[in-house]
Amino acid sequence: MERLPGFRDFYPEPLPHTDVWSCDARQYIFEKWRTTAKRYGFREYDGPPLEPLDLFTTKSGGEIVGQLYNFKDKGDREVSLRPEMTPTLARMVAAHERNYKKPIKWFAIPQLFRYERQQKGRLREHFQFNADLVGETDPAADAELIALLIDTLRAFGLTAEDFVIRLSSRNAWQDFFKHGGGDTAHEYNFFQIIDKLERTAPEESEKKLAAMGFSRAAINAFIEQGEPTAELKYILNNLAARGLRDFVKIDYQVIRGLAYYTGVVFEAFDRKGEFRAIAGGGRYDNLVKLISGDKVNLPALGFGMGDVVLLELLKARGLLPKFDATTDVFVLVEDEALRPVSLKLVHDLRAAGYAVEYPLTPAKPDKQFKRAQDLKVAYTARMDSDSYVRIRNLKTREEVVAGVSDAANHLD
Amino acid sequence: MERLPGFRDFYPEPLPHTDVWSCDARQYIFEKWRTTAKRYGFREYDGPPLEPLDLFTTKSGGEIVGQLYNFKDKGDREVSLRPEMTPTLARMVAAHERNYKKPIKWFAIPQLFRYERQQKGRLREHFQFNADLVGETDPAADAELIALLIDTLRAFGLTAEDFVIRLSSRNAWQDFFKHGGGDTAHEYNFFQIIDKLERTAPEESEKKLAAMGFSRAAINAFIEQGEPTAELKYILNNLAARGLRDFVKIDYQVIRGLAYYTGVVFEAFDRKGEFRAIAGGGRYDNLVKLISGDKVNLPALGFGMGDVVLLELLKARGLLPKFDATTDVFVLVEDEALRPVSLKLVHDLRAAGYAVEYPLTPAKPDKQFKRAQDLKVAYTARMDSDSYVRIRNLKTREEVVAGVSDAANHLD
Repeated sequence: MERLPGFRDFYPEPLPHTDVWSCDARQYIFEKWRTTAKRYGFREYDGPPLEPLDLFTTKSGGEIVGQLYNFKDKGDREVSLRPEMTPTLARMVAAHERNYKKPIKWFAIPQLFRYERQQKGRLREHFQFNADLVGETDPAADAELIALLIDTLRAFGLTAEDFVIRLSSRNAWQDFFKHGGGDTAHEYNFFQIIDKLERTAPEESEKKLAAMGFSRAAINAFIEQGEPTAELKYILNNLAARGLRDFVKIDYQVIRGLAYYTGVVFEAFDRKGEFRAIAGGGRYDNLVKLISGDKVNLPALGFGMGDVVLLELLKARGLLPKFDATTDVFVLVEDEALRPVSLKLVHDLRAAGYAVEYPLTPAKPDKQFKRAQDLKVAYTARMDSDSYVRIRNLKTREEVVAGVSDAANHLD
Repeated sequence: MERLPGFRDFYPEPLPHTDVWSCDARQYIFEKWRTTAKRYGFREYDGPPLEPLDLFTTKSGGEIVGQLYNFKDKGDREVSLRPEMTPTLARMVAAHERNYKKPIKWFAIPQLFRYERQQKGRLREHFQFNADLVGETDPAADAELIALLIDTLRAFGLTAEDFVIRLSSRNAWQDFFKHGGGDTAHEYNFFQIIDKLERTAPEESEKKLAAMGFSRAAINAFIEQGEPTAELKYILNNLAARGLRDFVKIDYQVIRGLAYYTGVVFEAFDRKGEFRAIAGGGRYDNLVKLISGDKVNLPALGFGMGDVVLLELLKARGLLPKFDATTDVFVLVEDEALRPVSLKLVHDLRAAGYAVEYPLTPAKPDKQFKRAQDLKVAYTARMDSDSYVRIRNLKTREEVVAGVSDAANHLD
């Protein structure tokens, strides 16, 4: 029986096959995400992986449905696996924002699902680090969130030579669109064309832009001048004060595809341009209002960082640690008469916090020792009698005999 | 917009409402599960939350479909959200067992989904700690797994006065059934009746049992004699050697509902009998063979422990810690001219591993200090000049002035 195409199995390392993923690497990434978010004062939340379908269609329109894992449940409800976390966050914040001091700083590590037409190797799920800051309009909030994004990537050992945040602004594009005589009704269509510029045939974009009264040359000129708006300048200075200026550049080519962004937008890319975006985000000051049916109005911004591109990048830069089994001690049972006291030793060492293995059934001493070596344990321990244990440091080859109740004191 | 009935939102504490769940408590539980499993040498794995429907119907028959979140995906595949983890584990092990030394000791913390007819407060998803041991027939494996179950519960502060493992055996029941002249074709039906004895009207069970040739009195006598089989005796002795004998009792009333169990079965219950089972598991020596289409034959056993009953029990016993925000330092910005150096200080302290908060925008000193107190920080820090920082320990009220690059050395 096979798993579904586009879904992943996560195995312990060393990986048995190139077609599966490392659970150790996944947990390593989650742990770094969590640790960095907490240092920035972000608290963890989560919502259901299954939500009412209209939570996702309200803000994106019906066109998104083609990419959803949606269905009718046994209670006749239209439901969908979550394709992104922001609508759930907006729903949760809107429901209980009064109980939290502003700004609300929250993060989550949801698994997200998209039904995309099958392409080789294209995944239909991934995990995403989501960090959001709700209740603050000041660009200081944008700077704080971007600093978190930068430091999250730095936590993996990535440097300013490895990645850059491309910083942009929908406001700047709105001004450009308005001054160019654009019709507000077409504004979002215009943004969509800009978003896809890098991935669309030039003639096609040009035709569409011309229909709205814009030349490709004018667009290019706007992108190339790269003059930061007052807001972006503030953010750059704020990041500079933290020593993070080298990680950011103004790049108006970034505009983000989602409909709900309202202000500053940004994406993180590897400097060599080998991979898709590592992360992306921006301001969505109207979404909480929309999701809450006008009951709650709170400015907000956030970013998402997927596990797949990040993992590819870390591998390519040699920054992924080697994940061995993490057994500390192997208890050898060479005399079956000593098995009961050996089990007690195993239990005591585990209770003291050590990861301990032992042969479940009688086995030859050399086979046991081979297993201990395979597990790369730091120590072997063997009961010499009912009361004494012989502990051997496999690195230094030093051996000590200790009272059994004292065993843990002879380990690092 | 509301979340789906039976699904949970997880918020940071303090909880805003009784209708939502604590993400802090959830992560506390996950962390204890992980730590204990690793001490026992179990490695983490995970599979897709969405699987082909027949992965779950193969072993349980079609009757389970009524309780599944199943649907047809856009590629016309019959799929289902996972209602349990064991079939996925069996599939994954069967695919790559040759690359792992036996016994394989793996754990996972999946979210599981069951569509049950709506009852007040009844959940349709939960998280489950799954630990499995594959490739060992000896009851030493059963003892090792049950020891892990016990120590996992002990890790939360629960004692032998709080919970007990009710240990039983399908083999013992098979012998009873065979010696009583039962027809093998009805064996699983018989097990189902025994499994539901405690929850079924006595007349109903009696009628069904009589139809198979068994009296309720004979069943009761078998349950009450409680004589451990040789296998169970071995397990009891093994656990006794570890000092865990007080946590286990023989109880043939336990037989487990699932079709695939083949040997030792067990459930963990609170001693007061206030809650549903905390955990349950047993041997399923034929499942890997079944799932792999006879390609791989490996004995196996495992248990599952849900987050919901465990959380109820911990709350009832007062064993759930208080989860505060975990900010270490609040950086006060009283002079806006010093904001850039204050941001640098914030950044340096975070880089040193501390969780740091500060006012994003200008705020009155007393309001800032109030916020620091609300966050229960251990320290405030305030730039005195471009180069010196005043650090205050809020508990001891001691204050030191330090060079800014030396600030982290004045914190615990």
